[in-house]
Amino acid sequence: MRPSGRELSDLRPISIETGVTKHAEGSCLIKMGDTHVLCTATIEDRAPSFLKGSGLGWVTAEYGMLPRATNTRNRREAAAGKQGGRTVEIQRLIGRALRAGVDRSALGERQIVVDCDVIQADGGTRCASITGGWVALRLAVNKLLKTGACTSDPLMDHVAAISCGIYAGQPVADLDYAEDSEAGTDGNFIMTGAGKLIEVQMSAEGATFSRDQMNKLLDLAEAGVAQLVAAQKAATA
Amino acid sequence: MRPSGRELSDLRPISIETGVTKHAEGSCLIKMGDTHVLCTATIEDRAPSFLKGSGLGWVTAEYGMLPRATNTRNRREAAAGKQGGRTVEIQRLIGRALRAGVDRSALGERQIVVDCDVIQADGGTRCASITGGWVALRLAVNKLLKTGACTSDPLMDHVAAISCGIYAGQPVADLDYAEDSEAGTDGNFIMTGAGKLIEVQMSAEGATFSRDQMNKLLDLAEAGVAQLVAAQKAATA
Amino acid sequence: MRPSGRELSDLRPISIETGVTKHAEGSCLIKMGDTHVLCTATIEDRAPSFLKGSGLGWVTAEYGMLPRATNTRNRREAAAGKQGGRTVEIQRLIGRALRAGVDRSALGERQIVVDCDVIQADGGTRCASITGGWVALRLAVNKLLKTGACTSDPLMDHVAAISCGIYAGQPVADLDYAEDSEAGTDGNFIMTGAGKLIEVQMSAEGATFSRDQMNKLLDLAEAGVAQLVAAQKAATA
Amino acid sequence: MRPSGRELSDLRPISIETGVTKHAEGSCLIKMGDTHVLCTATIEDRAPSFLKGSGLGWVTAEYGMLPRATNTRNRREAAAGKQGGRTVEIQRLIGRALRAGVDRSALGERQIVVDCDVIQADGGTRCASITGGWVALRLAVNKLLKTGACTSDPLMDHVAAISCGIYAGQPVADLDYAEDSEAGTDGNFIMTGAGKLIEVQMSAEGATFSRDQMNKLLDLAEAGVAQLVAAQKAATA
Amino acid sequence: MRPSGRELSDLRPISIETGVTKHAEGSCLIKMGDTHVLCTATIEDRAPSFLKGSGLGWVTAEYGMLPRATNTRNRREAAAGKQGGRTVEIQRLIGRALRAGVDRSALGERQIVVDCDVIQADGGTRCASITGGWVALRLAVNKLLKTGACTSDPLMDHVAAISCGIYAGQPVADLDYAEDSEAGTDGNFIMTGAGKLIEVQMSAEGATFSRDQMNKLLDLAEAGVAQLVAAQKAATA
Amino acid sequence: MRPSGRELSDLRPISIETGVTKHAEGSCLIKMGDTHVLCTATIEDRAPSFLKGSGLGWVTAEYGMLPRATNTRNRREAAAGKQGGRTVEIQRLIGRALRAGVDRSALGERQIVVDCDVIQADGGTRCASITGGWVALRLAVNKLLKTGACTSDPLMDHVAAISCGIYAGQPVADLDYAEDSEAGTDGNFIMTGAGKLIEVQMSAEGATFSRDQMNKLLDLAEAGVAQLVAAQKAATA
Repeated sequence: MRPSGRELSDLRPISIETGVTKHAEGSCLIKMGDTHVLCTATIEDRAPSFLKGSGLGWVTAEYGMLPRATNTRNRREAAAGKQGGRTVEIQRLIGRALRAGVDRSALGERQIVVDCDVIQADGGTRCASITGGWVALRLAVNKLLKTGACTSDPLMDHVAAISCGIYAGQPVADLDYAEDSEAGTDGNFIMTGAGKLIEVQMSAEGATFSRDQMNKLLDLAEAGVAQLVAAQKAATA
Repeated sequence: MRPSGRELSDLRPISIETGVTKHAEGSCLIKMGDTHVLCTATIEDRAPSFLKGSGLGWVTAEYGMLPRATNTRNRREAAAGKQGGRTVEIQRLIGRALRAGVDRSALGERQIVVDCDVIQADGGTRCASITGGWVALRLAVNKLLKTGACTSDPLMDHVAAISCGIYAGQPVADLDYAEDSEAGTDGNFIMTGAGKLIEVQMSAEGATFSRDQMNKLLDLAEAGVAQLVAAQKAATA
Repeated sequence: MRPSGRELSDLRPISIETGVTKHAEGSCLIKMGDTHVLCTATIEDRAPSFLKGSGLGWVTAEYGMLPRATNTRNRREAAAGKQGGRTVEIQRLIGRALRAGVDRSALGERQIVVDCDVIQADGGTRCASITGGWVALRLAVNKLLKTGACTSDPLMDHVAAISCGIYAGQPVADLDYAEDSEAGTDGNFIMTGAGKLIEVQMSAEGATFSRDQMNKLLDLAEAGVAQLVAAQKAATA
Repeated sequence: MRPSGRELSDLRPISIETGVTKHAEGSCLIKMGDTHVLCTATIEDRAPSFLKGSGLGWVTAEYGMLPRATNTRNRREAAAGKQGGRTVEIQRLIGRALRAGVDRSALGERQIVVDCDVIQADGGTRCASITGGWVALRLAVNKLLKTGACTSDPLMDHVAAISCGIYAGQPVADLDYAEDSEAGTDGNFIMTGAGKLIEVQMSAEGATFSRDQMNKLLDLAEAGVAQLVAAQKAATA
Repeated sequence: MRPSGRELSDLRPISIETGVTKHAEGSCLIKMGDTHVLCTATIEDRAPSFLKGSGLGWVTAEYGMLPRATNTRNRREAAAGKQGGRTVEIQRLIGRALRAGVDRSALGERQIVVDCDVIQADGGTRCASITGGWVALRLAVNKLLKTGACTSDPLMDHVAAISCGIYAGQPVADLDYAEDSEAGTDGNFIMTGAGKLIEVQMSAEGATFSRDQMNKLLDLAEAGVAQLVAAQKAATA
Repeated sequence: MRPSGRELSDLRPISIETGVTKHAEGSCLIKMGDTHVLCTATIEDRAPSFLKGSGLGWVTAEYGMLPRATNTRNRREAAAGKQGGRTVEIQRLIGRALRAGVDRSALGERQIVVDCDVIQADGGTRCASITGGWVALRLAVNKLLKTGACTSDPLMDHVAAISCGIYAGQPVADLDYAEDSEAGTDGNFIMTGAGKLIEVQMSAEGATFSRDQMNKLLDLAEAGVAQLVAAQKAATA
């Protein structure tokens, strides 16, 4: 029933390749099927000014999409002179999600910037960015631990995300673009390795959903995130 | 236990005054306690260009906050030269929420712009904007029905929103600023008059939450939205 | 002869409600007929950098108009990415006018920002902003005097403003929008409580005026400002 | 008593050189002492869109100042990414002033853009821009009359401007920078060749002025504008 | 002598992988050693408006660099709100270079946009962008020929580019970042498959160079471009 | 054969008038035929922050064109809200060129800003800006030497520039607009007084050129720059 022939609870093939750029402190290329996101983590010695003297660190994220990552070319945001609303919304979400898994005191007064750049898009780019962004963050933090810049691990748990939705009346996991553009309701579920919730965003444009449907999507998300966390573990082992 | 002395499930006093500006096709000043939002609805004869020839209409929203709506003055966004990320995120949410209650075919190829300007802020401005924005929209649509521009009602149901969160370990409804700034988890719940869900956004920065907590907040939200819908009915009767 | 039925020298009904927002150090909602402006004054501990070490303070103003304050919706300046020329011109005028009534040495090295936001427009918004802005400033300065932050009163006199013009060949006071859009010549007159002039701006687009007409408008302005000052006194008593 | 040794009513030496650029339809370099402004008029075949079908034309102005026109270098507005408030205010004034002398029906549905670029500044640049801008406009309009594009003269009268102010307690004409920066009150007076008023802007920052002082400045302005109009006539004869 | 141990005339290893994104009409990932650029070509049905009715097509380019493509993170241009001067200069160069190899009449009234996004930078990104951009363009044009949209080949010859410079007093080919940052003189040489010159940019900051040195660099460039053209041929065979 | 009737190697009449503005530390108006550029040099006490503590100075340039410097009016960049790509490219070139002739250690930690504003354009504005910009720089540096702020001359040699191109199949020097808009290949050649090369930019849009043609243009450039340097000497003697 799904355009890709997947079962309702099937995720797309997951691939997380680490160390893909020679400059970044942490990096990976995450592929969820045809959605490919390059994630890099940059360690900066200074925390943002609002944290000066607090002893706390910060993790933030920026998101971008190459102009031809999509089926029709999007105008380059740098040329347009500003980041669109969708971009701003997504990068704020990625930053919040990753921070939820960070012990900012253990991180110390420094900032890690996670850049998520979509090389190719086929739905679910924000979730892939979070899952891959966590891997880049993990690798960068490993360097801080190795050099002794951090003495206890600032990462409290894995953070991963999946989109699930109601497609053709059925709850399905890991929507691709063909499903996403048709789904009446879809949601992004961000969870920890222990299965706790960090953020839930469910939305129905021109429709509504019930608590029962919501629960079915949460069930799918829990199972899906477990697979993503396993992939993160394999990639960063 | 709550700073305001309210019970866990108590909403702040609700006031919705309609017809507050002489120019707009629909308008109201909604007050949720000390949060005051002026909502106006403007009918435009043309739909956005991407709808040309589709027979469908559009509802969009813009959100702003007067510089001194808050305890310390915020820089005026017009002077800063752009809308901040928070503003962009909120106005996209308001627009999506309101559209979920609209039969865009019955609306016809026109656009209604709902402006939500926060006069005074004490937490929950996005939810108040949605609840008040729907009232402004209702009043504007009434004019379209009266003049025969629309022959069937484009508004399928009420749309209202409430924020609920975990404050001091307890689930509470309609967070004010004092609670919001302390809450480990908070959520915005947008629902219809019939109690169906339109959008759920739950978020925990530097923390996590369980499905059980989520369900408790949903219970509070259902009860709260019912009161808001009653207030909308009274205001637009 | 006037669309509103007023006599040539009649002002619109004046209403100045103070303390309208709980956050600002000083605030009022001024209504000149259907022109409604919310004025707030914010005290900032630091003067602008060009005054560092001078012992002098500063008063500045910002002006905005809600998108649907007018008969047809104006594009939101924050969304447009800049303040329009008219806005810039008006807020510079308000700032200059208010500063003319301030003993900047008595104010000390601090800044007061007066925000004037037009909730509903029917002509004369810049004049109402000055008259109402002075009330907000007065209330904020009262706090500085009460706490002893200022030991002598930085406000030397009232500052109020009125627009007068030649409408249908006759000099009329306090133009409303219907008159303003037809007037061949119109002027803004800013004066002190003692009747001294602070700023005069008279302008004729596609026409000219004589010194005799100018003097007639000044006579109307003197009488009008006296009434505005009386209203300021009543509001801040 | 004046820094330049001029009498109270003396203008600086006036020089208006026409035809200074080979491309513009009309141009002049106006010098009021050390204030030098290059004015060009460009005829555009189309009026702004708000005049489409009205049969009326438009005259607009833009103003700029070379970065080192002043004693200390100003940041280039193109590099800063926007025109400052002062620039916007001035160019709106120039445009309004010139339009006041134009029969827009005789001009027909076309636009003339008058660019005023300050090469060297020593006070009074906006007034010099108006006086010189009119000359550029006159020369451009002459071309329209010569080719028959206009059959009756769209210019109803001369338009010229002068600044006068209270310097060291005395009313003086044509303020230079040394006077302007010290003057308690100063005004810009825009008049026609027939001596009618187009715009009066008098302003006192941190001070006030009386109607008697205002009248003395108007007297000076009338005499000064007459000299400027004579210079315009000589330049365009 | 070279940091990489290469001979003076040695290029870095060249790799051109085509078909790297599923959406673009043409694409490749070009690697010149550690410099990696993703190039995509997008066919747009319409030429820019200045070509309307001319029968001629257009090729343009945009250039970007991922924030962490370099050793220290660069601010994202979309977040900064504009493309930097270096970016603008480079993308104009790429566009001019590619157009030099295009028969715009054979292309017809359509536009091809070549996006060059630097994934990893180690010197020579603009040259790699031109060499790789041509491959993406070639593949996109092949589609136009296959569908019959173009009946004769709009690509007249290969276009490829190399940077050469004076490093440690010696002329060297294909500078990497370590060399580029030390070179007294460096140049970018853009040539056709037939060895004709399209663009030469040689520059010495804080130094000068002789015609003899210039000729030595041109010799290196000719040999280097021949190798790049061979790689283009292999990739697009 | 040339539209102007000049011989192939003839430059246009050169005029360099110095001291043209009373404020700048150095200034000139350079005329190459109908191309007129006003160049001013401003000495700033501080070097850019990236040079702090280095003991080195900086020379930078900004370029602008008055809106009606050209045959049809260009939009004012300050009004457009940004400098166009061409402007950015040109001002970077001017800055690099001038710096190549500067001993930044002898200059000391200060900055000289060279503003080049095109009053009238007829081709070759970037080259005239460099040649005239050097004169303004020379005059400003003379002041530093006179006051003892610099004890040895920071200017190592003259810097001048000329454009040459292939017009109607022939190599010609100092292209005017009529030639420039027709030339298949054109180049800008920046050289020192001693005849060394600083920058060479040759470009062929929609065409190519040979090394032989390149050499012919270099020969013309060498002879032309010698004449420009002679004019610089005469102007600054």
